[in-house]
Amino acid sequence: MRIALAAVLLLLTAFTGFAQKSDEAEIRHVLAASLEDWNRGDVRGFMKSYEASPNTLFIGKAGVTRGHQQVLDNYLKRYPTKESMGTTTFSNLEVKLLGDGHAWVLGNWNLKRDAKAGGDIGGVFTLLLRKTPAGWKIIADHTS
Amino acid sequence: MRIALAAVLLLLTAFTGFAQKSDEAEIRHVLAASLEDWNRGDVRGFMKSYEASPNTLFIGKAGVTRGHQQVLDNYLKRYPTKESMGTTTFSNLEVKLLGDGHAWVLGNWNLKRDAKAGGDIGGVFTLLLRKTPAGWKIIADHTS
Repeated sequence: MRIALAAVLLLLTAFTGFAQKSDEAEIRHVLAASLEDWNRGDVRGFMKSYEASPNTLFIGKAGVTRGHQQVLDNYLKRYPTKESMGTTTFSNLEVKLLGDGHAWVLGNWNLKRDAKAGGDIGGVFTLLLRKTPAGWKIIADHTS
Repeated sequence: MRIALAAVLLLLTAFTGFAQKSDEAEIRHVLAASLEDWNRGDVRGFMKSYEASPNTLFIGKAGVTRGHQQVLDNYLKRYPTKESMGTTTFSNLEVKLLGDGHAWVLGNWNLKRDAKAGGDIGGVFTLLLRKTPAGWKIIADHTS
């Protein structure tokens, strides 16, 4: 009986560990895929990493923007061409699984582009993500 | 039997609602209390709203600072006098309870002080908080 219980606990621990690793891997995959879209000049593809909700938040230099559509509009306005979007990399990514289907991510972003297209820019971002039926989605992005 | 089940469900729903309200109220109280400390010129008191951990994060203009002590040191360096700390208010606070003992907060901050002390400054912050045995504590602060 004790051995059976121990076996169950071991399996449960292993499974929890697997689920957490898988969640972190999924989140990293979502961000990497969105970056590929960005670097292909596809803002709409990039925006698929954000939840398609009127509550989705972007906090940036222009203040707080609310709604997937509004965030997309701002990106399209700020980055009207592939040249202005440049080539972006993320680094120093830290994923904090919060349990209950939420996660928080810290990272650096670095956008390289011609001086004519605006020159290099970069900074830090923190993301809040939610596990939805359509996968992990950003529900709030604070970029500075 | 069905009535008993319905009664239990009702109680459970009411209790969950109460717990959530109480969590949000507690978080708002922690932030309001820390602001009172700040406006009294007490940086150490203000810092009690942050978890006393080497993992506590502050993301700001100077990049990423890690550790309660380091965040405190930066505040003491940046705001060496009561005059430089001015009078700060928070506004537009939004508290998102994430379940599993975590919460996320969005808000505006506004620091008023004499031009001689550096003049008015302000911006947006997003906080990640954790419910600890010592109450709700900020584990990551992104201020821009």
